Amino acid sequence: MSLYIQLFYSDEVNALFSDSSAVAQMLRVEAALAQAQANKGLFPAAIAETIKANCTVADIDIEKLKSDISLGGNAAIPLVKQLTQIVKNKDAEAAKYIHLGATSQDIVDTATVLQIQEYIVWLDQKIKVLEKQLVTLTQKHRQTIMIGRTLLQQAKPTTFGFKTVGWLEAVSRSKQRLEQAKQRVLVLQLGGAVGNGNTNISIEIQEECARLLDLKSSFTWHSHRDNVAEIASVFGVLGGSLGKIAKDISLLMQTEVGEVFEGAADGKGGSSTMPHKRNPVTCAAILANTNRLPHLVATMLSTIPQEHERSAGLWHSEWEVLTEIMQLTAGAVAKSIALIEGLEVDEIRMLANLELTNGLIYAENLALALAQKIGKSAAHEWIENACKKAIQERKHLKEVVLEMNIDLTDLDALFDPKNAIGLSLELIDQVVKKYQ
Amino acid sequence: MSLYIQLFYSDEVNALFSDSSAVAQMLRVEAALAQAQANKGLFPAAIAETIKANCTVADIDIEKLKSDISLGGNAAIPLVKQLTQIVKNKDAEAAKYIHLGATSQDIVDTATVLQIQEYIVWLDQKIKVLEKQLVTLTQKHRQTIMIGRTLLQQAKPTTFGFKTVGWLEAVSRSKQRLEQAKQRVLVLQLGGAVGNGNTNISIEIQEECARLLDLKSSFTWHSHRDNVAEIASVFGVLGGSLGKIAKDISLLMQTEVGEVFEGAADGKGGSSTMPHKRNPVTCAAILANTNRLPHLVATMLSTIPQEHERSAGLWHSEWEVLTEIMQLTAGAVAKSIALIEGLEVDEIRMLANLELTNGLIYAENLALALAQKIGKSAAHEWIENACKKAIQERKHLKEVVLEMNIDLTDLDALFDPKNAIGLSLELIDQVVKKYQ
Amino acid sequence: MSLYIQLFYSDEVNALFSDSSAVAQMLRVEAALAQAQANKGLFPAAIAETIKANCTVADIDIEKLKSDISLGGNAAIPLVKQLTQIVKNKDAEAAKYIHLGATSQDIVDTATVLQIQEYIVWLDQKIKVLEKQLVTLTQKHRQTIMIGRTLLQQAKPTTFGFKTVGWLEAVSRSKQRLEQAKQRVLVLQLGGAVGNGNTNISIEIQEECARLLDLKSSFTWHSHRDNVAEIASVFGVLGGSLGKIAKDISLLMQTEVGEVFEGAADGKGGSSTMPHKRNPVTCAAILANTNRLPHLVATMLSTIPQEHERSAGLWHSEWEVLTEIMQLTAGAVAKSIALIEGLEVDEIRMLANLELTNGLIYAENLALALAQKIGKSAAHEWIENACKKAIQERKHLKEVVLEMNIDLTDLDALFDPKNAIGLSLELIDQVVKKYQ
Amino acid sequence: MSLYIQLFYSDEVNALFSDSSAVAQMLRVEAALAQAQANKGLFPAAIAETIKANCTVADIDIEKLKSDISLGGNAAIPLVKQLTQIVKNKDAEAAKYIHLGATSQDIVDTATVLQIQEYIVWLDQKIKVLEKQLVTLTQKHRQTIMIGRTLLQQAKPTTFGFKTVGWLEAVSRSKQRLEQAKQRVLVLQLGGAVGNGNTNISIEIQEECARLLDLKSSFTWHSHRDNVAEIASVFGVLGGSLGKIAKDISLLMQTEVGEVFEGAADGKGGSSTMPHKRNPVTCAAILANTNRLPHLVATMLSTIPQEHERSAGLWHSEWEVLTEIMQLTAGAVAKSIALIEGLEVDEIRMLANLELTNGLIYAENLALALAQKIGKSAAHEWIENACKKAIQERKHLKEVVLEMNIDLTDLDALFDPKNAIGLSLELIDQVVKKYQ
Repeated sequence: MSLYIQLFYSDEVNALFSDSSAVAQMLRVEAALAQAQANKGLFPAAIAETIKANCTVADIDIEKLKSDISLGGNAAIPLVKQLTQIVKNKDAEAAKYIHLGATSQDIVDTATVLQIQEYIVWLDQKIKVLEKQLVTLTQKHRQTIMIGRTLLQQAKPTTFGFKTVGWLEAVSRSKQRLEQAKQRVLVLQLGGAVGNGNTNISIEIQEECARLLDLKSSFTWHSHRDNVAEIASVFGVLGGSLGKIAKDISLLMQTEVGEVFEGAADGKGGSSTMPHKRNPVTCAAILANTNRLPHLVATMLSTIPQEHERSAGLWHSEWEVLTEIMQLTAGAVAKSIALIEGLEVDEIRMLANLELTNGLIYAENLALALAQKIGKSAAHEWIENACKKAIQERKHLKEVVLEMNIDLTDLDALFDPKNAIGLSLELIDQVVKKYQ
Repeated sequence: MSLYIQLFYSDEVNALFSDSSAVAQMLRVEAALAQAQANKGLFPAAIAETIKANCTVADIDIEKLKSDISLGGNAAIPLVKQLTQIVKNKDAEAAKYIHLGATSQDIVDTATVLQIQEYIVWLDQKIKVLEKQLVTLTQKHRQTIMIGRTLLQQAKPTTFGFKTVGWLEAVSRSKQRLEQAKQRVLVLQLGGAVGNGNTNISIEIQEECARLLDLKSSFTWHSHRDNVAEIASVFGVLGGSLGKIAKDISLLMQTEVGEVFEGAADGKGGSSTMPHKRNPVTCAAILANTNRLPHLVATMLSTIPQEHERSAGLWHSEWEVLTEIMQLTAGAVAKSIALIEGLEVDEIRMLANLELTNGLIYAENLALALAQKIGKSAAHEWIENACKKAIQERKHLKEVVLEMNIDLTDLDALFDPKNAIGLSLELIDQVVKKYQ
Repeated sequence: MSLYIQLFYSDEVNALFSDSSAVAQMLRVEAALAQAQANKGLFPAAIAETIKANCTVADIDIEKLKSDISLGGNAAIPLVKQLTQIVKNKDAEAAKYIHLGATSQDIVDTATVLQIQEYIVWLDQKIKVLEKQLVTLTQKHRQTIMIGRTLLQQAKPTTFGFKTVGWLEAVSRSKQRLEQAKQRVLVLQLGGAVGNGNTNISIEIQEECARLLDLKSSFTWHSHRDNVAEIASVFGVLGGSLGKIAKDISLLMQTEVGEVFEGAADGKGGSSTMPHKRNPVTCAAILANTNRLPHLVATMLSTIPQEHERSAGLWHSEWEVLTEIMQLTAGAVAKSIALIEGLEVDEIRMLANLELTNGLIYAENLALALAQKIGKSAAHEWIENACKKAIQERKHLKEVVLEMNIDLTDLDALFDPKNAIGLSLELIDQVVKKYQ
Repeated sequence: MSLYIQLFYSDEVNALFSDSSAVAQMLRVEAALAQAQANKGLFPAAIAETIKANCTVADIDIEKLKSDISLGGNAAIPLVKQLTQIVKNKDAEAAKYIHLGATSQDIVDTATVLQIQEYIVWLDQKIKVLEKQLVTLTQKHRQTIMIGRTLLQQAKPTTFGFKTVGWLEAVSRSKQRLEQAKQRVLVLQLGGAVGNGNTNISIEIQEECARLLDLKSSFTWHSHRDNVAEIASVFGVLGGSLGKIAKDISLLMQTEVGEVFEGAADGKGGSSTMPHKRNPVTCAAILANTNRLPHLVATMLSTIPQEHERSAGLWHSEWEVLTEIMQLTAGAVAKSIALIEGLEVDEIRMLANLELTNGLIYAENLALALAQKIGKSAAHEWIENACKKAIQERKHLKEVVLEMNIDLTDLDALFDPKNAIGLSLELIDQVVKKYQ
């Protein structure tokens, strides 16, 4: 990852996924477990205090941890060993109560949930920033007329605000998804060797431990991975919607379109030998992440059918992939905020581009107006001929209509883009008021 | 699909995805649109009646439709053409009001939503059947002791009911996901050429049309595909949890394990030349579907970033893939119900398998009991030696313990699996009561 | 699939993947097996003749086959049952020798290989057609100057032939891959129950059977699926290169670019209410297939690690997916041929688009020329200033240069696109001669 | 990646993919370019010497590089800037000739190819080690009889050597694929801004630069990504075959099967509280990688259709993904070698497991022998009854046959596994001799 850490990722959350942070979260779980067991009378509070006091990542030899990890097959086993030794050196009695009744998956899974928990707080706040930006952008460009494009062809006029309010709605639905999936995924994993608890992992200790970590208690999910796969999907869907924004902007930035631009920064996206270029560098980074996410989500989905009470391989596939999903999504969100922040809109070019078809985009307008006079069928035929003539003779449709001498008053109004944007404004307003 | 239609799919929903059903749903949308427009005064009710009366799939030449589809690029274009001709033959005036103001994507997308709507009703009901089965199975086997396995190794005892209640919880969470995603996906698509409506597609007509089809009205999602990708993910997660059940059962059916079996049917899963075989044929079918779903969901996720107001290709990728996802998930659900229905449990073999390690699975039990007498550390060391001896001499651990003459009363109780299932029963009961 | 059979697939190969064709290929394998066994003296030639004479798909009740398939779990089991009954009715003795020593996977896998064999012949011939088209297109547009675009921005001039020769090379490499992968995948599967042969499946019978089917003999690959996954990848790579062509063309067809167009057909890609549209309908279909292929290939790759001597589920996942991959690739190839066949190139628009940056695309040309007079560093600085001026004052760079009164002879040559296409012509010629 | 660097990856190649190695490869390309241009007379040899002398990774400020990368959008832009500054400080004239005529993608792509080149040398050598191991293992266990299993059910006897020779063949085919794909992917990328060369990037300079880097020259592939996608697929296929080995071994290690085991190491795969466990830790790591590879390959396939002369996002998706694919494949290979190296085979348990079905696995043997006496049809019926009886009465089939008093001489031979392994030995020998 590291060479591209600035390009694809977000500094704001990278630390959350560092080795030491991952270890720290596991230590938090061990500490909470000891605390919960003491709170429920399994051993004296002082023991728990000693354990907790030593659950500090700074004392862990992370290089040794990495090297031991391939023996046990997961990070909790060597970590518990180190932690036990550290505590033992200070208080041999307390050391006996570390990790009591737990299994390594309890620690690894709950630590992952704690990462997700922190990550979601960050992500939710970022989505809110993006929503706010998009509301503002929409309001600013509510009436900024531009062409709507289908299958990459100019179709009919719309407004830039209409485009951005669609982006807003999609992003906002992902916020809602996150809120719902959160209820399922932010749960404690604590079940012991095969998940069915034991004298040291009673139901009340599960509940106490969950309380201490601000999680919900849950039936063991050692080998039921729907929740983690679901949250991965939610990130994947959000990533897709951010990709949609970047896709649109990169297309609008094309030299031949030139309607919007990423904000310029010194040295950003430019080229000294090609001074005309305005590369969509931020869009490219977002799209790169967006291209990768669906496949990583597929990995998570494919790991759901895990064997028996713990899988031999599928569980292990999840670890790095879920982290990668969260980091790529974070990068996409952070970069989308920067993208919208700096976005430049060329309203003049938007208007100019409306003229590229020589008025043909107003053909339907004309047909509707004419139909009221000579009937739908005749009007349609008449307009079709006019359009053909305009195309063949490379003339503006208005000119052709004038030449053909048809009885249409207020021809200018029919060729005025303001009259061709349908219900854009009402539809925008209907959405925007939800965000106020 | 067809050669394997019985193996991987469900007859109960196959019809919903047939050509004629797909066409029928599109006709339903055209009919509702006309009705809504008439209801809102755009044209006389009689016109809408005529249109609706002709929106019958039997009148459509589906072969011609298929052959015309490659010109327009989607199914709605040739369908509207055929429908218009049919109506025109009866009432030329009414024909003018077909598909008024709409775009082909309005019809295709809303028809897809109608399929999803019907499908979800079916699916939800099936999940409830499966839940009920799993509750019953759990209650029946609440105390059926078996070994829990981690990394495919015998770990510690659990009960079969504890295993099945985990399946139940996972399936049930997918029911919840479905309910939540449904709120987002069961929405009308009706926006006209670039989604921003027009005089024939007013907000009130959108709302009326949605009401007629029992959908919610929504801001246009022509090129915002998060909702369809989300519902695909929800199916994918459910498929994964069903795969988990099939995976467990297929492993438990292994000749060397022999603890549970798919129900036998004449000729099912057997082999005349290998009379001992009991092939997990149903599990294999479920797992086959489960293996395919994540990749199809990835396709849906990768199609989210669609260009501008309609995509040139990404939208088109969705059509068959979403259908395939729904059909494979349906097959997996229907087959899971059959699987659970016929499941045979060999409780005797389960108990016998508990003995395969010569009592080593009770080592921790022993260590805990001994620790109360001689301290944790000494107990642990003592037990470790006993285990080594048992392994080396291929003796039962109980025998070794007796030989080593340690002071442990009630040794039988310590080697009794009933005392080694942790909180299985309490944890089961806690879950099961939620379903009653 | 069927509603979209014309849109995404190719009629030329659809029949190869029909139910009856799949059954026919399995019967071919049974016939060849009997023939090989008779040839090697296992039973009289007359027996083999009788079996072969009855291996006709017309006699098979395919509906019954489909319905029985879910009992045995694959298509060969019920097929052998039906075939045996058919033969038995005519010659009870011959019936005993059907499928002798074989296992159902032998039949299913070898039948699949026979489909691949036929398919590859078709595909290879289609690729050659496409190559020929692209050679012709390249030669025609060897000197057709257009702008090259990077990151969707105009960069520097190139020629359309240079673009198409790149398409040609990529397609051609896939032909080479196909040839190499073919050597591995066109192999007989014949190993009996666990793949290790038996008295009825001797090495010489394997070789004879392979010879009869024009395949190579091979060590059993019942649960070694690298070859089928590889051929799927080869199709996936080809699909990607076809998608690249369609992507380029769809972008060049944009209203704002307008440089090339899909051939027009009556009613194709047009819109009566939007007469200016020229939808890239064929490109969209190709891109739709291209979007789906990577995920289907991933399914094939994920099924490689099959359990022991036959998998419970992973093998079953392959069947429909491999077929789908072949059909989508066929559709993409056939549509690419149609696309290139009808391609229209607007050379005038290409030249016009070169002027969109007001000469800035020639900045480097200028800098190089100037450097020879005033040194690289000074030249660079001077040109940078000229470009800034041109952008600020919205003037053509040539105009600015003239105003700035720099000593550059033959300014017209420096702004002549013919002098700005690098080695396009030499590089094209170098490639094209390989195809002649 | 880093916490799990020992678990999933291989130290032997990790360095190749470090930041500094990636930068070093880019510098190698710049150096070769300068050398080639000097060799072909573009500038004095001394200039090239100066540039080359400064192409040392130690002088590059990699942290600054990472931070600048998000402005230009790729690693080459800030690298060329730094390199130019470094050279300029020493020789202002030489600095002008750095990166002459090249584009950043030339550098990034060729550097990636150089990584692939080194990687393939390593990988090929590792595959050869693995092949050798598998040949040895096969020879050792040529006659080690075990049960063959289909659909996870005991089917018929085979030998362990027959199983391992299948692994060998699959791995070996991937070596062949690698060799073929290598011919396509180890090519220079050097085309300048839009790939069509220029005065500084002539055909002869391309050829010279390729020669210096031991690559082939090639038509530009800036936006034709089939070769990199292909090599990714080749790694994915290899990964799958390694996963097959790990899958088999993990299943054979099940407590209830217990036929083979990963080599034990102190603290490896064990559990102090569950002394009987022998966790397939290495298998789990290999399977984890194997589960992830198909999805990463799909990403590479999905990036093939890149826009015009350089993509805005798809190209960028490749960078980290291709690296991840190579690292995960390396980890899988290195761990497979360790796995095979330490593999322990329990031949006694293999024989014991053959008895689990009470002789039913010999039913076909019996039927064949009996058929010679009483005809196929009668024999079949008779054996079917005997089997039913054996199952019902939980008796050994041999015992039942004796009771039923059928005239079969040499009954012991019919129940001797040595006589039930088909052509295992011949088939093994046929393969093994290819490797000698």
